[in-house]
Amino acid sequence: MEKIKGGVTAAKGYEAAATAAGIKYTDRTDMAMIYSQVPCIAAGTFTTNVVKAAPVRWDMQVVKSGANVQAVIVNSGIANACTGEEGFGYCRETARAAAAALNISENGVLIGSTGVIGKQLPIDKVSAGIMALAEKKKPSLENGTGAAKAIMTTDTCEKEIAVTIQVGGQTVTIGGMAKGSGMIHPNMCTMLAFLTTDAVIAKETLQKALSEDVGDTYNMISVDGDTSTNDTVLLLANGMAENPEIVYETEDYQKFKEALHVINEYLAKKIAGDGEGATALFEVKAIGCESVEQAKTLAKSIVCSNLTKTAIAGHDANWGRILCAMGYSGAQFNPEKVDLFFESKAGRLQIIENGTAVDYSEEKATKILSESEVTAIADVKMGDKEATAWGCDLTHGYIDINADYRS
Amino acid sequence: MEKIKGGVTAAKGYEAAATAAGIKYTDRTDMAMIYSQVPCIAAGTFTTNVVKAAPVRWDMQVVKSGANVQAVIVNSGIANACTGEEGFGYCRETARAAAAALNISENGVLIGSTGVIGKQLPIDKVSAGIMALAEKKKPSLENGTGAAKAIMTTDTCEKEIAVTIQVGGQTVTIGGMAKGSGMIHPNMCTMLAFLTTDAVIAKETLQKALSEDVGDTYNMISVDGDTSTNDTVLLLANGMAENPEIVYETEDYQKFKEALHVINEYLAKKIAGDGEGATALFEVKAIGCESVEQAKTLAKSIVCSNLTKTAIAGHDANWGRILCAMGYSGAQFNPEKVDLFFESKAGRLQIIENGTAVDYSEEKATKILSESEVTAIADVKMGDKEATAWGCDLTHGYIDINADYRS
Repeated sequence: MEKIKGGVTAAKGYEAAATAAGIKYTDRTDMAMIYSQVPCIAAGTFTTNVVKAAPVRWDMQVVKSGANVQAVIVNSGIANACTGEEGFGYCRETARAAAAALNISENGVLIGSTGVIGKQLPIDKVSAGIMALAEKKKPSLENGTGAAKAIMTTDTCEKEIAVTIQVGGQTVTIGGMAKGSGMIHPNMCTMLAFLTTDAVIAKETLQKALSEDVGDTYNMISVDGDTSTNDTVLLLANGMAENPEIVYETEDYQKFKEALHVINEYLAKKIAGDGEGATALFEVKAIGCESVEQAKTLAKSIVCSNLTKTAIAGHDANWGRILCAMGYSGAQFNPEKVDLFFESKAGRLQIIENGTAVDYSEEKATKILSESEVTAIADVKMGDKEATAWGCDLTHGYIDINADYRS
Repeated sequence: MEKIKGGVTAAKGYEAAATAAGIKYTDRTDMAMIYSQVPCIAAGTFTTNVVKAAPVRWDMQVVKSGANVQAVIVNSGIANACTGEEGFGYCRETARAAAAALNISENGVLIGSTGVIGKQLPIDKVSAGIMALAEKKKPSLENGTGAAKAIMTTDTCEKEIAVTIQVGGQTVTIGGMAKGSGMIHPNMCTMLAFLTTDAVIAKETLQKALSEDVGDTYNMISVDGDTSTNDTVLLLANGMAENPEIVYETEDYQKFKEALHVINEYLAKKIAGDGEGATALFEVKAIGCESVEQAKTLAKSIVCSNLTKTAIAGHDANWGRILCAMGYSGAQFNPEKVDLFFESKAGRLQIIENGTAVDYSEEKATKILSESEVTAIADVKMGDKEATAWGCDLTHGYIDINADYRS
């Protein structure tokens, strides 16, 4: 596996574009297009929220139908959530406009939206934006980066990555971009990720690879515990790498999944570390667990605790809060066996042994916790399973961004 | 039912005291005693956290044993949680010291602690404090208030209440005090509530009344979603009202339960509204539900959402966040049927009808949301069951209190 430059246009046959459609923002790009020169198969995973935004419902339908996909249209500024039948109609109009502009099938257009809930899309601006995108699209890496920028809300940086693997003598590329949970219109905490690959792979296998990995990556991050109405991960495969087909549970499949995991973990961590108001990426590893499920439950409970997150913001080795969050997670364990460590670039320090504090240096702990990436490792000594979750610290910035976003 | 002055000493035969034992604070009272002139039966409900503080484990044992109880010793400053066998030993020593000072049985002493996790109690100071408390105890209302003040951490005010009911021609009194989730040592979010009554009632009936009501009151409040290691509600009954015994599921039992509910709801709401950094009590009613369980799930999900809570802090009618929180609650409902209202002293306003926004006045919404008690009412139109949850807004104050509590 090799990490290469680029994002959604790194794989063969993909083009991208960005444009300033003026949907809500007036001083930046706010629409992006991903286009494949040939039809793709598509896999997707979507929010579990009962309240699903119109584009989520649209995409679920497209992915489920098995239709070949050739374009993804994304806008920032308005989420098209809680917009009723009118909002869903705008998805259809968006797909129709893209189909006409690109001369592809209407059923082959996927859609992503992020922004404020409850507002209707200005469909004329969207349609004009699509015309502009169709003209601007190029296979260049720059255009990929442009697309990654256009889908940002209050993300502080674009998030993209690409890797290659060798399959049967052919180079297979996977690239992706994502936007996270720094938002000007933070109804959403919307996480959107768009992945492209030139691999030859069956639709069912592609979906399995994506579904299996999402549980270990995007589903292990938390910024504030609020599950968005718009969360979407889409993965397109256009087969242009001309590799021998990647078949489920073969060695090539493992290789493909590992590459996909690198992409997903990278984007998920970028999203977590760029959470609203965040000053640090907070990584939590639960180790020595009986089962992966137990490990996930423990790691997520710690990473989601407001008290733990404010402690990280304060560079405070507040281990009691971590033990407390493990305790109410719902997972069973013996608190009197727990070991806890903090780790960062500045070093590693044991804080708890068998449930009670060791005589550690507060000064060293504060030093470790002052880095921009901080890891807590909790060992419950019940087995050899483990899981990692990612979040961020909870700061004044989060309150500022969220307390009064519409004024 | 009549609301009267006082708290834990309002009922017949109860005395209280407070003293400055210097356990952690040096400029205030930090220990309290509740004493009954005659042995009591005791009911209790405790944290569901796997990590249970030593006093919780002690009290569970005492309540389960059925032993008569005659005193409760509470300290603030140190939680005696994650303190291993040494910490549990200090519970035994506390009980022993109280038993000796009061000439009662060691097994009849209940204990409550709140404060920092992981520190051992300075048992000599605790023992000296108990001697002082035993000398100071009085049945006066002032001493009840003194006790309510001594158990505070960063609560901004003491919390106490008392009511009377008539049972078979006798006046039965229930009083209580609680401390909540404004904390200088906020490992805990510890909620402690101590209730006293002079009712004649069997232990099993008392426990049923308490257990039934806790689910509708204390278990429906959330300050930050972190379930403490120390949460405890204790209810003592000493029979001194000489009423005919209150028997389960009779009219008198209903009367007693209603009075208990008034006490518990009052204290629960006081705790929620006095949450760390809170500027407003946030009440959420889920109505039109199929089941009480569904209603509770929806109400709690809304009241626990960081995004909803920051919106309340910003006086922002951000209904999308509320719908979103309902959507990920796990409860099933049709988002396109939901009506939503905001209500406070400043009026009542419909915001959503059938899942989409009505044309409401933002100005009026902001006015309603600027009050110190704000209610959101969500109607899912599936039945006639409802539930209420209480929380508070999420402000800069919360971050300030929690980010660096030990410096």
